[in-house]
Amino acid sequence: MSAPLQPRLDRAMSSVTIPPPKCMLRPLEVPFRYLFGPGPSNVPPRVLAAGGRGIIGHLHPEMYEIMNDIKKGIQYAFQTQNNMTIAMSGSGHAAMECAVFNTVELGESVLVAVNGIWGERVAEIAERMGANVHIMVKAPGGVFSNGEIEKALAKHKPVLFFLTHGESSAGLAHPVDGIGDLCRKHNTLFLVDTVASLGASPIFMDQQNIDILYTGSQKALNAPPGTAPISFNERACQKMFNRKTKPVSYLFDMAHLSNYWGNDGQPGLEESWRHHKEVAGYLWKGLEDMGLKLFIQNKDLRLPSVTTIAIPEGYNWREMLQYIMKHHNMEMTGGLGPSTGMVSVRGMLKF
Amino acid sequence: MSAPLQPRLDRAMSSVTIPPPKCMLRPLEVPFRYLFGPGPSNVPPRVLAAGGRGIIGHLHPEMYEIMNDIKKGIQYAFQTQNNMTIAMSGSGHAAMECAVFNTVELGESVLVAVNGIWGERVAEIAERMGANVHIMVKAPGGVFSNGEIEKALAKHKPVLFFLTHGESSAGLAHPVDGIGDLCRKHNTLFLVDTVASLGASPIFMDQQNIDILYTGSQKALNAPPGTAPISFNERACQKMFNRKTKPVSYLFDMAHLSNYWGNDGQPGLEESWRHHKEVAGYLWKGLEDMGLKLFIQNKDLRLPSVTTIAIPEGYNWREMLQYIMKHHNMEMTGGLGPSTGMVSVRGMLKF
Repeated sequence: MSAPLQPRLDRAMSSVTIPPPKCMLRPLEVPFRYLFGPGPSNVPPRVLAAGGRGIIGHLHPEMYEIMNDIKKGIQYAFQTQNNMTIAMSGSGHAAMECAVFNTVELGESVLVAVNGIWGERVAEIAERMGANVHIMVKAPGGVFSNGEIEKALAKHKPVLFFLTHGESSAGLAHPVDGIGDLCRKHNTLFLVDTVASLGASPIFMDQQNIDILYTGSQKALNAPPGTAPISFNERACQKMFNRKTKPVSYLFDMAHLSNYWGNDGQPGLEESWRHHKEVAGYLWKGLEDMGLKLFIQNKDLRLPSVTTIAIPEGYNWREMLQYIMKHHNMEMTGGLGPSTGMVSVRGMLKF
Repeated sequence: MSAPLQPRLDRAMSSVTIPPPKCMLRPLEVPFRYLFGPGPSNVPPRVLAAGGRGIIGHLHPEMYEIMNDIKKGIQYAFQTQNNMTIAMSGSGHAAMECAVFNTVELGESVLVAVNGIWGERVAEIAERMGANVHIMVKAPGGVFSNGEIEKALAKHKPVLFFLTHGESSAGLAHPVDGIGDLCRKHNTLFLVDTVASLGASPIFMDQQNIDILYTGSQKALNAPPGTAPISFNERACQKMFNRKTKPVSYLFDMAHLSNYWGNDGQPGLEESWRHHKEVAGYLWKGLEDMGLKLFIQNKDLRLPSVTTIAIPEGYNWREMLQYIMKHHNMEMTGGLGPSTGMVSVRGMLKF
């Protein structure tokens, strides 16, 4: 068999026609920027240094110890004792798809609160996988009352209800108290997105009866992008591990991910929340003193990690943001999805 | 509205019941290991250092320049001029799902060559998304002839044919010459997995008429895990951008990913292949001199990056691998999926 194969290998060895690009010989250059957009955030030197450590295998005993430490850290940040708490490899979108793909089966009813881009996104994800999607819609920054939510739960009998806690496209911190109880009453899982809020604005997964919670690493947690912490409580596990069909994605199948994560079992959070609230207060006052209007008028509903400024009449928001980057190396962004052109968005450093 | 919300925030500020874990105060410790398994591989200091650089935004002009450099590097490594060439955020599995999700619609016929775990995996992914999956099966390490492949293409008329170039569970480098031409003749897209082989064993995406090619970052490319290079040629783009339905995953939808990647458009590869082949030759001879048998008997079919050793009779492979790690800090692994218990697997450092 080796005789006929020889010509193949000889041809292969002499067939490189595309030369190596010159850029491969340059070292990576990354300019310093003050990241004041909603994310990614600047990363403290201690965390950056950890990213430069050597690689070990994904099945080595030391890796399981590191994963166990990560799990404990997420349990603390989420304020949960859920055993099914992991960091996914991927973006906040990966956690979003993981949550929906695992807890919903084809044709099941899903209710999504849409008051900005992230609700729209979850509705699209659920539609693509073939769920029966119902949406409640408010303008960007709008707040859903518990009464409105209960009415919709009773009407659509969803297996899953989605709400964004930190709606970065509007700068809104949506209240969550009481909604978990309503979801239990109606046999619905309560899924909350805290990508833009976790660590900046108080959330208590267990006390607030949130069934599934996820976030991203690159926002108020001040880590590099690429991991997405997610946690499922017992109710969520009951539903997802008693499916009739397999989730549409192998990669995001919690049956595999939970096996890998073992499934056994300081400045603090309060200081982080207090700090974000205090510093955001100074920022809000300074902006208002300059004559600017904030997009979310009720202070208690403002995300401390993402401040949205209404675009002043007669100004071009793209030109303003370019000016700020050019002269101050500061990133600020426009709105997202439905809030595009309505606001400019400024995130906040934690450290 | 601020009056009724005040109690909520006060309660929140005093409700932290789960204390910060002590492990959060320890610096990250990562032991040094010689990574001689099929992956991840040890990463050269220059690449590790790049991983410790500061963060910039995903929409900054400098980020697009970096992405453009990455694209050129992948085009070189794949030997392709395809414009639709990107690095996905995620593992090799992410690229696998991306390829299948984008090019196949519900109910369409897919043909998968299964001679190890990766073919099994792609068949499962295609089944989950509702494709009509046909498999050709051989024992681990088995080679499909072009005649067998053409017969199956003619019979099942698939929109996509999958083959693993570097089958790490058996240590096989499968020939690919001529298969791309057969796929064109039968109006099928040719999808090739080179996660375990790219950079170690010659592959020429354009010359070999491969329509979709992907790999992982953490194998012979010697980068950290977390990105998956993938490329689609014009035929593949025609199919995936003229779908009737949206792909089941939003995250992996190439319509979005290609927008983000712009869609405009040194030791060399030969030295890397030569080096792998030469060093693997020494390893194979040394192992055979010790009386060990290699799993793939035909030298021309052996993966230079992953060597599989048949488990000698009367030995417990788990005990052997634990002994080697304990006494030499060297990772070697058992087989994967169908080859479990048949082989022990040893990858190779590139640098």
